[in-house]
Amino acid sequence: MSESHPEPHFDLDELHTLLGPRLVRDPELIAPYAVDTSRAVAEGAPLAVVLAESTADVAAALGWANRAGVKVSVRGAGTGLAGGAMAYADGLVVSLERMRTIIDIDVPNRLATVQPGVVTADLDAAARDHGLFFPPDPASARISTVGGNIATNAGGLRCVSHGVTSDAVAALEVVLADGRVMRSGARTRKNVVGYDLTRLFVGSEGTLGVITEATVRLKPVPPGSPRTFRASFGTLEDAGRAVTAIVNSAARPEVLELMDALSVEIIESFHPSGLTVPAGAMLVGQTVGWDAQEQAEAITAICRDVGADDTEISETDALLEARRLSNPALNARGLKISCDVGVPVAALAEVFHGIAEISAKHGKRVSTVAHAGDGNLHSTVESPDTPVGIREADAVIDDITRLALALGGTISGEHGIGSVKRHELGWQLDPVALGVQVAIKRALDPLGTLTPGRGI
Amino acid sequence: MSESHPEPHFDLDELHTLLGPRLVRDPELIAPYAVDTSRAVAEGAPLAVVLAESTADVAAALGWANRAGVKVSVRGAGTGLAGGAMAYADGLVVSLERMRTIIDIDVPNRLATVQPGVVTADLDAAARDHGLFFPPDPASARISTVGGNIATNAGGLRCVSHGVTSDAVAALEVVLADGRVMRSGARTRKNVVGYDLTRLFVGSEGTLGVITEATVRLKPVPPGSPRTFRASFGTLEDAGRAVTAIVNSAARPEVLELMDALSVEIIESFHPSGLTVPAGAMLVGQTVGWDAQEQAEAITAICRDVGADDTEISETDALLEARRLSNPALNARGLKISCDVGVPVAALAEVFHGIAEISAKHGKRVSTVAHAGDGNLHSTVESPDTPVGIREADAVIDDITRLALALGGTISGEHGIGSVKRHELGWQLDPVALGVQVAIKRALDPLGTLTPGRGI
Repeated sequence: MSESHPEPHFDLDELHTLLGPRLVRDPELIAPYAVDTSRAVAEGAPLAVVLAESTADVAAALGWANRAGVKVSVRGAGTGLAGGAMAYADGLVVSLERMRTIIDIDVPNRLATVQPGVVTADLDAAARDHGLFFPPDPASARISTVGGNIATNAGGLRCVSHGVTSDAVAALEVVLADGRVMRSGARTRKNVVGYDLTRLFVGSEGTLGVITEATVRLKPVPPGSPRTFRASFGTLEDAGRAVTAIVNSAARPEVLELMDALSVEIIESFHPSGLTVPAGAMLVGQTVGWDAQEQAEAITAICRDVGADDTEISETDALLEARRLSNPALNARGLKISCDVGVPVAALAEVFHGIAEISAKHGKRVSTVAHAGDGNLHSTVESPDTPVGIREADAVIDDITRLALALGGTISGEHGIGSVKRHELGWQLDPVALGVQVAIKRALDPLGTLTPGRGI
Repeated sequence: MSESHPEPHFDLDELHTLLGPRLVRDPELIAPYAVDTSRAVAEGAPLAVVLAESTADVAAALGWANRAGVKVSVRGAGTGLAGGAMAYADGLVVSLERMRTIIDIDVPNRLATVQPGVVTADLDAAARDHGLFFPPDPASARISTVGGNIATNAGGLRCVSHGVTSDAVAALEVVLADGRVMRSGARTRKNVVGYDLTRLFVGSEGTLGVITEATVRLKPVPPGSPRTFRASFGTLEDAGRAVTAIVNSAARPEVLELMDALSVEIIESFHPSGLTVPAGAMLVGQTVGWDAQEQAEAITAICRDVGADDTEISETDALLEARRLSNPALNARGLKISCDVGVPVAALAEVFHGIAEISAKHGKRVSTVAHAGDGNLHSTVESPDTPVGIREADAVIDDITRLALALGGTISGEHGIGSVKRHELGWQLDPVALGVQVAIKRALDPLGTLTPGRGI
């Protein structure tokens, strides 16, 4: 507690009585919990970290914090890119990393019930033992948690065919800001009983409640062997046109990703795999089902029609592996993703053209990877890690964001608002919609205990 | 205005000044607006009906009603089955039937923007002119409106493959209870900016706002010719087992419906089409895509394995047409659907067994049609249209509803709560979830102007 902080009106020993060793106060142990994977700046050391092992632990922590006036941040694996899981100075961190039990896999109903701290790829692997899989597939699936994915409505590589995380969530158990526990949703496909609270909590970024259990929808693993495909283009705009054409064809790619030349160069230098850096951009993707080969051939044919100078179809996963390494490769250069704009898929060529103009105007190199089939772009600006360099990079990102909005797009496709994009909210939401958002936050968390000042 | 009503503190002439002839006060003209298609009992004559032609009309009406303390009911085509569109005695009816323009069909982005009064089948037909279709397909699609479908999160026949209405809604324009206009959602596939207000308004049954424009997602028409299929079973339980097996197979039926023997008899006597009444139940459905024939064959093979005594595959739509006639056929007998329960699809055989027991216990004949692939059941009780007969029928429906809940199901799969199912809310929602629902309603409509006392 810093000297300038007013005397606290709470008793942390009271919470210790409730939680015992699950309340961690050792400054060295809690230091790593101050930050997440975003480029947000640490706000200060938290009071303590709750390593929750049950819904009751979460309820006790929130009940105490709400009464005590202590801000709470919520954390799965801390892989968020928008600053939503950053600790508050003298706040309480609720970590769900120990709640990692897969409670049930209901094969005939294709549902899984899990605790929030289950790593997403682990759930997917467990489902595959039953011939099923968990559709959401963020690039971070091997390190991020189901709870964090739900709290941010994470996207990922398979959205183009399977939708976003919210499409896979059937029911939730949630602890509200004051510690009360509720359930939303149902185990049925259809359910129209009251407002859709499940969808309200999905993507609410820890501001309305803490997810302590989730029932998610699984899908059957497609038959046959998947194929991956690659197409290299001389220009980014051509690659954008190809994506629009593919999405509007009879093909149904399960994955359709784009990496521009600079991205391929960054990934290849981080983890050489023999990828040839294209002049403009590379599309990579995957098809599944009995007709995976035919579909991959149809897609690469479209790419050649639109101007691809080199295409390839493969039975290995290496092309997608390269794409998954994009974030680690950027991080190794000291760069962190902060741009997560989306555009309608028919505007892809136009947005790439605009990004090139913005890059030239600012004199900054910009690398872009995209969940292209969804029109969701992550651009990273090469800029020194100094206050001036960061300010210059932010100006580029701001221009790209305004461009996406002008094309009918969104300021965030899958990472969320967190603390990093809060200044952009009013760019997209009209004042009435913003007012409704705030009214809902106040209705559910009147004292502002849960993740205050972030998300909405 | 009845004599017992307190002197109104409002001036309807003020609203007339704003709306001119779009405000209808003639008692004969507004009489049909007092009721919807449900079995709810009319509450009394409304003050007036607003035949809105624009968002501004709706905003003017709600602003006036909110200031004046007049209850507002909202109405598309009035085809709702849960009593959500019934007029309030001395209330104001906002009808959206004149707002029926398809504003735009954006083919490359597969989006349509429509006014709420567009008839659902008309939107589907317009999309098909571009090789696209509108996935939501309630049995009422030829008479119900897109706005009403969204307000109730309507289901329908194609949900088993394409999801419910909410899965097809990208963005909304909504007039709030106090007349303010806001927009939610985006034209992109992914959008995680603030709480998902679009999903909150979908299915909110007119209690949070009035939808005045919707941007919906279209899909490409599947290639090839669809096939319909039929399988007749000696028992309802066998039909239920077949559905569970089909849903868990590699087959992907676009439609998978069930009619029990009594339903087939009722439909066939209403509109004879040569259907043979099965001993137990009939499954009908549709497959699409290049492999429609192979899939239909796989499905009928599963049916025969589970005990179907007669199966058929056809290139005509007649089998589905029969299913679509279920509601009109029941109405012609003076019966109205009020049961809309859902169960996890693996529980279908068990719920049918239980319904037979409930029917025997009460000594009432029960007919059931089901969107079987979704586990969504509509049971109708044959009972005299007298106060005693209705009470006896309600007791049967209550038992079926509790059975569905005991099997992990829901009290409403697609019709909503309206006024008819309000007493059942607490059967499904826990008190904390109910409290959150009420808190959201109060946050958005503090004066209780919009559809008060219904839905949540």
